[in-house]
Amino acid sequence: MLLLHRAVGLGLRQACRLKSTTSRICIQVCSTNDSFQPQCPSLYFSRDKYSTRGWRVVGALLGLGAVLTYRDHRCRAAQESPRIYTREEVKSHSSPETRIWVTLGSEVFDVTEFVGLHPGGPSKLMLAAGGPLEPFWALYGIHNQSHVREILAQYKIGELSPEEKASSTLKTSDPYADDPIRHPALKVNSQCPFNAEPPPELLTENYITPNPIFFTRNHLPVPNLDPDTYRLHIVGPPGGQSLSLSLDDLYQFPKHEITVTLQCAGNRRSEMSQLKEVKGLEWSTGAISTARWAGARLCDVLAQAGHQLCENEAHVCFEGLDSDPMGTAYGASIPLTRAMDPEAEVLLAYEMNGQPLPRDHGFPVRVVVPGVVGARHVKWLGKVSVEPEESYSHWQRRDYKGFSPSVDWDTVDFDSAPSIQELPVQSAITEPKDGEMIDSREVTVKGYAWSGGGRAVIRVDVSLDGGLTWQVAQLDGKEQRPGKAWAWRLWQLQAPVPAGEKELNIVCKAVDDSYNVQPDTVAPIWNLRGVLSNAWHRVHVWVAP
Amino acid sequence: MLLLHRAVGLGLRQACRLKSTTSRICIQVCSTNDSFQPQCPSLYFSRDKYSTRGWRVVGALLGLGAVLTYRDHRCRAAQESPRIYTREEVKSHSSPETRIWVTLGSEVFDVTEFVGLHPGGPSKLMLAAGGPLEPFWALYGIHNQSHVREILAQYKIGELSPEEKASSTLKTSDPYADDPIRHPALKVNSQCPFNAEPPPELLTENYITPNPIFFTRNHLPVPNLDPDTYRLHIVGPPGGQSLSLSLDDLYQFPKHEITVTLQCAGNRRSEMSQLKEVKGLEWSTGAISTARWAGARLCDVLAQAGHQLCENEAHVCFEGLDSDPMGTAYGASIPLTRAMDPEAEVLLAYEMNGQPLPRDHGFPVRVVVPGVVGARHVKWLGKVSVEPEESYSHWQRRDYKGFSPSVDWDTVDFDSAPSIQELPVQSAITEPKDGEMIDSREVTVKGYAWSGGGRAVIRVDVSLDGGLTWQVAQLDGKEQRPGKAWAWRLWQLQAPVPAGEKELNIVCKAVDDSYNVQPDTVAPIWNLRGVLSNAWHRVHVWVAP
Repeated sequence: MLLLHRAVGLGLRQACRLKSTTSRICIQVCSTNDSFQPQCPSLYFSRDKYSTRGWRVVGALLGLGAVLTYRDHRCRAAQESPRIYTREEVKSHSSPETRIWVTLGSEVFDVTEFVGLHPGGPSKLMLAAGGPLEPFWALYGIHNQSHVREILAQYKIGELSPEEKASSTLKTSDPYADDPIRHPALKVNSQCPFNAEPPPELLTENYITPNPIFFTRNHLPVPNLDPDTYRLHIVGPPGGQSLSLSLDDLYQFPKHEITVTLQCAGNRRSEMSQLKEVKGLEWSTGAISTARWAGARLCDVLAQAGHQLCENEAHVCFEGLDSDPMGTAYGASIPLTRAMDPEAEVLLAYEMNGQPLPRDHGFPVRVVVPGVVGARHVKWLGKVSVEPEESYSHWQRRDYKGFSPSVDWDTVDFDSAPSIQELPVQSAITEPKDGEMIDSREVTVKGYAWSGGGRAVIRVDVSLDGGLTWQVAQLDGKEQRPGKAWAWRLWQLQAPVPAGEKELNIVCKAVDDSYNVQPDTVAPIWNLRGVLSNAWHRVHVWVAP
Repeated sequence: MLLLHRAVGLGLRQACRLKSTTSRICIQVCSTNDSFQPQCPSLYFSRDKYSTRGWRVVGALLGLGAVLTYRDHRCRAAQESPRIYTREEVKSHSSPETRIWVTLGSEVFDVTEFVGLHPGGPSKLMLAAGGPLEPFWALYGIHNQSHVREILAQYKIGELSPEEKASSTLKTSDPYADDPIRHPALKVNSQCPFNAEPPPELLTENYITPNPIFFTRNHLPVPNLDPDTYRLHIVGPPGGQSLSLSLDDLYQFPKHEITVTLQCAGNRRSEMSQLKEVKGLEWSTGAISTARWAGARLCDVLAQAGHQLCENEAHVCFEGLDSDPMGTAYGASIPLTRAMDPEAEVLLAYEMNGQPLPRDHGFPVRVVVPGVVGARHVKWLGKVSVEPEESYSHWQRRDYKGFSPSVDWDTVDFDSAPSIQELPVQSAITEPKDGEMIDSREVTVKGYAWSGGGRAVIRVDVSLDGGLTWQVAQLDGKEQRPGKAWAWRLWQLQAPVPAGEKELNIVCKAVDDSYNVQPDTVAPIWNLRGVLSNAWHRVHVWVAP
């Protein structure tokens, strides 16, 4: 983390001052698109496609003609003696017409020629045009590598004036420096923000996932909130009264406790990206976990603020207390009908498996929306309001939506698809692992199955021959209340290994109580964001001789 | 409708009179196992597989010499004295090979030469081939114009015999003898009990399915109920009061009107049986239709009888007034939670598309359970009661359930699967037809899509290459209320035919707002009863050279 401190030594606050309107819009875009997760320098390695793809592009372009460009730049840099600039001057170079300058530390760079080569796309780099790179590099830690600095060095045109340098020594902090310590068993998909999943063999070890290995999906740095001063703001209806609830206030509502499975829309994304590149974190089968949540029912709290169901469509918008450097908070919404329905059991949860919420899971209060995609379970909840339209948050409107496989980033129209709320039926094999060698006599297949909207899993079929024949797995765990099957079913099948087989293609598929089933293959449900990956899960194993 | 009555006046009763003893024995079997439906000889005939290629030839020929043909007809009509035909003779002329005859009133027409000129397309006119035009003209009122009659007059070849004009008045003891007259466009899968579906090209002609061609799924003979003496028995709770409601009593409850799609669990069963034998009627894609239903809300009626939601699981059991010779009535049940939920809008319906329910659809009162399998929409409703367990009816407990493909009649355990309530997402292509010859430039693909549980269809993907690439179809019809998308969406795609293709494998698949999708193939969802057949729908067509 020290490295990061050094790297982002300069001016977060100053960055915020600059072109605040543009930045405000832009940062939201970056911070929400998890294909461009900031990577802190750390023990963990980037797994996302961005790096490889991006740098491949750079490589290719460099391979064609960058040597010349490079030499040209080096010449310019050598020929011209370093000049001194003010921040105001730098700021005035923020478009191709005026040329595009940026700063890093006390150095000034003219990156006009590089913008088109930027692996993250020109638009992302343009966010920093005329100002410091540090705030963006802090979010996207992948930049903190020596070869990135070497590339940048080629574009150096001068330095900031000494007065400007002085102001640049203002103390700043890595927004992720205060993130909590995590369990080493977690498979980290992104360090900053922190996104990690439990390994499959731990995932279905217990019906209730232990807090330390519950999958974590953060979009921003983890806020460090003081429970004594924490307040939850409930905006009242017109003519009504807004509430500012302390934790103690929230405890006064009837405590409601339910077992709920949370799943990220990106669970099993890696199977989609194997097929064709998608934007998003490389989740395996572990972006799903189950906990016992306790808290106040949202409907009770809304009612106390004077809200009631209305004729017109309305939405309950949630705002987190996690925010990007510009102060933009995470946000999402659910329909008011769900929020006000006592049977839907939407919680303002303050306990997870009998403990106060861990910081990674929203301490002190998060939303839990049973049967609904994880993205709506807003953590570090700060504000709840009822609005005529869905949350205007990027994550509600420009992310977490499904599209046809034919839609790409040139043709996508986010307004054309509804935000994901309830998730489709899902299942996956957690044991044996892909590529494993199994006993030649008997195989035990284990996994989980779950469906959105409170629909119960009624059957899991398992095939040992790639889907030609099927056996019915045994469902573990008790049945749930009709229409309120918020939690998964673990399942297993013990079956003899067909004689003479040297390998098995194990497949599972689940059926829910609306008799919805999983699709056979991934390609027809592929989508550019890699969400809703719920095709049959397949594992290939070898049979011991 | 008078014309219709006259037109099909003959033979239904006679048909059913035949082999009455056998029928009597069969009835019990049929009523429970629709794979063994007795087939009464009927007036109806197959309309499938009529190829457009044939009409292309006709068209071409007409293009060369239609004027001569026209004059030839005028001459023939004048020269030949009107001949007398029986309905049987007319019926035998239903293809280009045998020539195509139709009747209107007592007149007989040979429209072979006109079929290719029919403004609604040849296939629509072919639905009437060998039979009366009235039922179709009744559906499509545009025909009732003098110039249409003038065109038709040119093709007159004779008259029906006087005996044919008078309908049979014979009474029989056949339990089906009193079944109502049906529309000849219906494709009959079983005559006794009557089970029939509209042909695909009529199915998606209108968003609201006209009553005469609404698919009909009867399990038993149609009771003939007197609306004046009809009573609906609502069993009260312990200590409460039972109700005996006349139709007028039912009209006193607030009238609730909603558009709801009904689908039989066996819709598209024929695709399953092609793969491996199943027990059940050979439904094609037409065991689904949409109507505007009006009636009293079940929750209002139950509340009047003193029922309320209870802590324990409970079910609302329905009994029909249709019964087998042993007096066993049709029955089914739904969970009390759904029945008591005003938002679920369960109806005791007495109107269908602004008319009293037709006899085939439950006159005078049927249940309509939006978003739920047709089998629970009990017709000719006689009794409603609240019970701690599901209906003990065969159709609730020993039918209408889904199983793994591995389960056969030796291993099936009906208690192991929940009764089907909400249905999974579904879609099908209604145009073009399988085996059709399409234009080489552009293809128009039409169909329907629907999902159970009020889940809206949000997208339909169409492939012209068997599922390798997809295009997004245009959804017709207005969007529905969130969570209450009880009715289907019709859709279409107009797309250029890929150059050089001689045939197309057209596929459709729908997505609902829980992002559930249809499975790719039939085999993995095959089940011994052939229910829940919702794999991608596929149609193979030839491209005109």
